Amino acid sequence: MSEKIGFIGLGNLGLPVATNLIDAGYTLQVYNRTASKAEPLVAKGAQQVTQPADAVTTGGIVVTLLWDGAALENIVTSSGFLEQLGPNGIHISMGTVLPETARKLAAIHEQHGSTYVEAPIFGRPEAAATKKLWIPYTGSQQAKERVQPLLKAMGGQGIFDFGEEVGAATIVKLVGNFLIVSAGYSMREALSMAEKNGVDPQAIVDMLTQTLFPAPIYQSYGRMIAEKSEPFGESEIPLKDVDLLKKTAQQAESPTPISNFLHDLLSTDLN
Amino acid sequence: MSEKIGFIGLGNLGLPVATNLIDAGYTLQVYNRTASKAEPLVAKGAQQVTQPADAVTTGGIVVTLLWDGAALENIVTSSGFLEQLGPNGIHISMGTVLPETARKLAAIHEQHGSTYVEAPIFGRPEAAATKKLWIPYTGSQQAKERVQPLLKAMGGQGIFDFGEEVGAATIVKLVGNFLIVSAGYSMREALSMAEKNGVDPQAIVDMLTQTLFPAPIYQSYGRMIAEKSEPFGESEIPLKDVDLLKKTAQQAESPTPISNFLHDLLSTDLN
Repeated sequence: MSEKIGFIGLGNLGLPVATNLIDAGYTLQVYNRTASKAEPLVAKGAQQVTQPADAVTTGGIVVTLLWDGAALENIVTSSGFLEQLGPNGIHISMGTVLPETARKLAAIHEQHGSTYVEAPIFGRPEAAATKKLWIPYTGSQQAKERVQPLLKAMGGQGIFDFGEEVGAATIVKLVGNFLIVSAGYSMREALSMAEKNGVDPQAIVDMLTQTLFPAPIYQSYGRMIAEKSEPFGESEIPLKDVDLLKKTAQQAESPTPISNFLHDLLSTDLN
Repeated sequence: MSEKIGFIGLGNLGLPVATNLIDAGYTLQVYNRTASKAEPLVAKGAQQVTQPADAVTTGGIVVTLLWDGAALENIVTSSGFLEQLGPNGIHISMGTVLPETARKLAAIHEQHGSTYVEAPIFGRPEAAATKKLWIPYTGSQQAKERVQPLLKAMGGQGIFDFGEEVGAATIVKLVGNFLIVSAGYSMREALSMAEKNGVDPQAIVDMLTQTLFPAPIYQSYGRMIAEKSEPFGESEIPLKDVDLLKKTAQQAESPTPISNFLHDLLSTDLN
């Protein structure tokens, strides 16, 4: 596996995912805005570059894992990225963006003869380190076949094919994150009520996760809440993801009462 | 198992639960406000009575499965119920009420020498018929030991002990139902958004229930939503249960932003 892979975006999730690729034997060319983040990868043999386009190999595969759609668009439209990727090149975009951003970028890649595959990641950094990620993906059949081994090497314990119309996997990701946020905040409210009534929250979590909700999300967030740590900490990710779902729903004229409400609740929490 | 059990409340859930008891060999004395509902049980040998107190055997066990706290209080304080139950009698209350109602009734029973056990049921009528109920319960240790075989015979695949302080099992039930309602409505909003964006809701449910949410609730409600049937139909149960949680939280000065919101959302839905 000596194929040279470009990897752009070494944040909390990007770093363990890129590390998995190196450990699986891939050669990496890495770029990150804050260069020092690349150090652990360079120590493992990754080649660090100073411009996003320099991470791209013509006809090869470049992975991006960026904070939002604006950062992603910046990289793609930055000097040389698309020209360097060229015909037969594949861009695997793994951050969470608006479906319309994904569709727009897919069209731009097509104009340049390359292929955009969306493969947003479900999983915290710890799950990346233990290769327990879930990845829905969408893109051309040929490109998907080519990137599948790479997604597994990144730590995808399950890869789910959502067809060829880019936007679909992003929507799956938005649905999943929204359900996580809704479940997490609902647990927080209900378990606080229980505790103020003298009932041990952990005992409730134990019962409910053996019965109605035998789901990792309920187990992990439930335990965090019972232990008085905020399920989402100070993270802005839940608010960002709820907003993306809300905007996507509103563009399609789908009602958003819960998204609106969670937006307000989470905004208040962060202030 | 010839012990004579009183059973009051033969609604959608009460009827299959009582049927399980008869099928397990118990002798039942049944009461229901609408008498005709008892017919299937009478056909199986149950003795039908015309007053709630007549279903009660002194020193025995009487089960109630009633719509709300007001109905439950009416039965308990109706002529002769507590006197007939007498010393060593046990009342298993299985409907969902306010914890404070449960505590109040527990105290009244104690004054009469009898014991109140709360054992609210998680499960739809179909789950009762297939003996797939989950039952948290609270009450005196001695009473719990005596009623445990009965709860299993009713269809409890899992019985969870929440101590001796009545109110705790009711709180567990309120937490569970609130999380079901929150998850169900959140799924409805998110999957509608997905469908309006051209993504098959069932495909999303299939992925999410194999990964983040491998829970019966997400599977069954997700399928219902994908098939365009309302997860909670025209039922008033979700609204009632959210209200009970909200009131219980407010009495304990625990914040209720999501309960308030769901209350408004569900009220609108029912209008």
